[in-house]
Amino acid sequence: MELLFLGTGAGVPAKHRNVSSLALKLLDERNAVWLFDCGEATQHQILHTSLKPRKIEKIFITHLHGDHIFGLPGLLGSRSFQGGLSDLTVYGPPGIRDYIDISLQVSQTHLKYPLKIVEITEGIIFEDEQFLVEARLLDHAISSFGFRITEKDKPGTLDATQLMAEGIMPGPIYQRLKNGEIITLDDGRTIAGHDYLGPDQKGRIITILGDTRPCTNALKLADSADLLVHEATFAAGSEGMATEYFHSTTTQAAQLAKEAGVKMLCLNHISSRYLKEQSKQLLEEAKGIFPNTVIASDFFELAVPVGSK
Amino acid sequence: MELLFLGTGAGVPAKHRNVSSLALKLLDERNAVWLFDCGEATQHQILHTSLKPRKIEKIFITHLHGDHIFGLPGLLGSRSFQGGLSDLTVYGPPGIRDYIDISLQVSQTHLKYPLKIVEITEGIIFEDEQFLVEARLLDHAISSFGFRITEKDKPGTLDATQLMAEGIMPGPIYQRLKNGEIITLDDGRTIAGHDYLGPDQKGRIITILGDTRPCTNALKLADSADLLVHEATFAAGSEGMATEYFHSTTTQAAQLAKEAGVKMLCLNHISSRYLKEQSKQLLEEAKGIFPNTVIASDFFELAVPVGSK
Ligand SMILES: [Zn+2]
Ligand SMILES: [Zn+2]
Repeated sequence: MELLFLGTGAGVPAKHRNVSSLALKLLDERNAVWLFDCGEATQHQILHTSLKPRKIEKIFITHLHGDHIFGLPGLLGSRSFQGGLSDLTVYGPPGIRDYIDISLQVSQTHLKYPLKIVEITEGIIFEDEQFLVEARLLDHAISSFGFRITEKDKPGTLDATQLMAEGIMPGPIYQRLKNGEIITLDDGRTIAGHDYLGPDQKGRIITILGDTRPCTNALKLADSADLLVHEATFAAGSEGMATEYFHSTTTQAAQLAKEAGVKMLCLNHISSRYLKEQSKQLLEEAKGIFPNTVIASDFFELAVPVGSK
Repeated sequence: MELLFLGTGAGVPAKHRNVSSLALKLLDERNAVWLFDCGEATQHQILHTSLKPRKIEKIFITHLHGDHIFGLPGLLGSRSFQGGLSDLTVYGPPGIRDYIDISLQVSQTHLKYPLKIVEITEGIIFEDEQFLVEARLLDHAISSFGFRITEKDKPGTLDATQLMAEGIMPGPIYQRLKNGEIITLDDGRTIAGHDYLGPDQKGRIITILGDTRPCTNALKLADSADLLVHEATFAAGSEGMATEYFHSTTTQAAQLAKEAGVKMLCLNHISSRYLKEQSKQLLEEAKGIFPNTVIASDFFELAVPVGSK
């Protein structure tokens, strides 16, 4: 599970930071990629990575500002053109359907895969046996969502070496033991799955926020997360401007990370007013409050460490 | 007057060719730039040139396929964000208005300049004292237009040195002489403007075509043009595929240039199936039929020579 930042700028593209997009690589977990936001030229950025558009299974849109959605029609079309056939679901605020529908219709883009569009409200927007995704509204000029992605705990690995040593050979019985069942063997022995299972592997929590001022819902979404991706459009000291434009500063992001008790903070969505050389300074501002902070740049990849109890 | 190619690929972006866009620089003529098509990431390409988005006065859209329009909402928004205040007119096939309106509406992009959208049909779509632009429908899977841009002849320059030698000093009279008037001076002399004017400067004709199979309207639009920009999606020998997908090959473009009697041909809209190294081969195919051919690549700039009678 890795985050690959495709665009880490704010508002308009700059040479060194494209507009917003962020890939959550779930290749080991489900051979899939989830995208968060899709600013213009996201598909162009992808050309410079090893990401396969056909592996994109879900696209979550935080809000409908152009720098977060104008790459969507192009990516949807190219995914089809490049042989993507599997289902794709786009989750986003109301309005996203009209935008996608008109764009594909007018351009006569005919997708060869089933596209599902889900206009979201607050609450659980996706859940399966592996993941749960919760959305909450943040504090921005237009409806902007934050997402809390919870990976479910995985049962520990089955100790096959020990089982075979005891004469219990691989077969369907292994899955039953993995499920924790108590089984009576043909020879009369009774064995319990949990005696052969390692400790549960704790799932991870990743919080990815759309554009926002610091707010209570951001705090709730980030509560004890393993990783928080928070916007930091402005530098410390520009709180007035941040408030005016419904954004946050580096230190506001760090303060929120601290209050939420997250393990790691990643600053994202940096205004193009800051030059490449200033990234270090922005990072230091946040680190003064929350030491375990990194700052995203285009093509920066961040592994989300495996959780532990 | 120069053409600056911003995207010269077909269908989907590739690393070495972006999707379609082409700037006609009219800086000397009217301190303005006209754009032809606006594929995704056109504004990103512009970042790598000296073009100023605020100088873009008109955008002509040949057809509504995604690779020709998906960069439009982003560019319109950024032009405003970067301080563009002057009028901008977009000309395109019916449907272009819905696409722009919904994209700007959903993303709450508020332009600070007046945007005019003209849904075009065949005929003269623009005319002022300098230029005349004519549109005709080509032969593509959806309505695709070609444009013939005619620069009007300019009167020759006024011989101020001669006038002053004859005691006629600069003033409003010079404009009247430039207009060809016959004027009686205070001292009784009668002088005629045309005696002091150099030869007319012949205007140029540039023909820029959207995606198309070879067709009669392409021939009409290109008739005796100084420069023809023609798509060449496929290599010579792939005429079957070109016909199937409503495109042209290098040699079909060259044949049309020859029949139309243009002065120069520029191949454009090259499929991403052809590698960068193959451009020379594609060019040679066309040159075999029409020697004065060049092939466009991203950021290629082509000066349109001043016409002569
Ligand atoms: Zn934003
Ligand atoms: Zn095309």
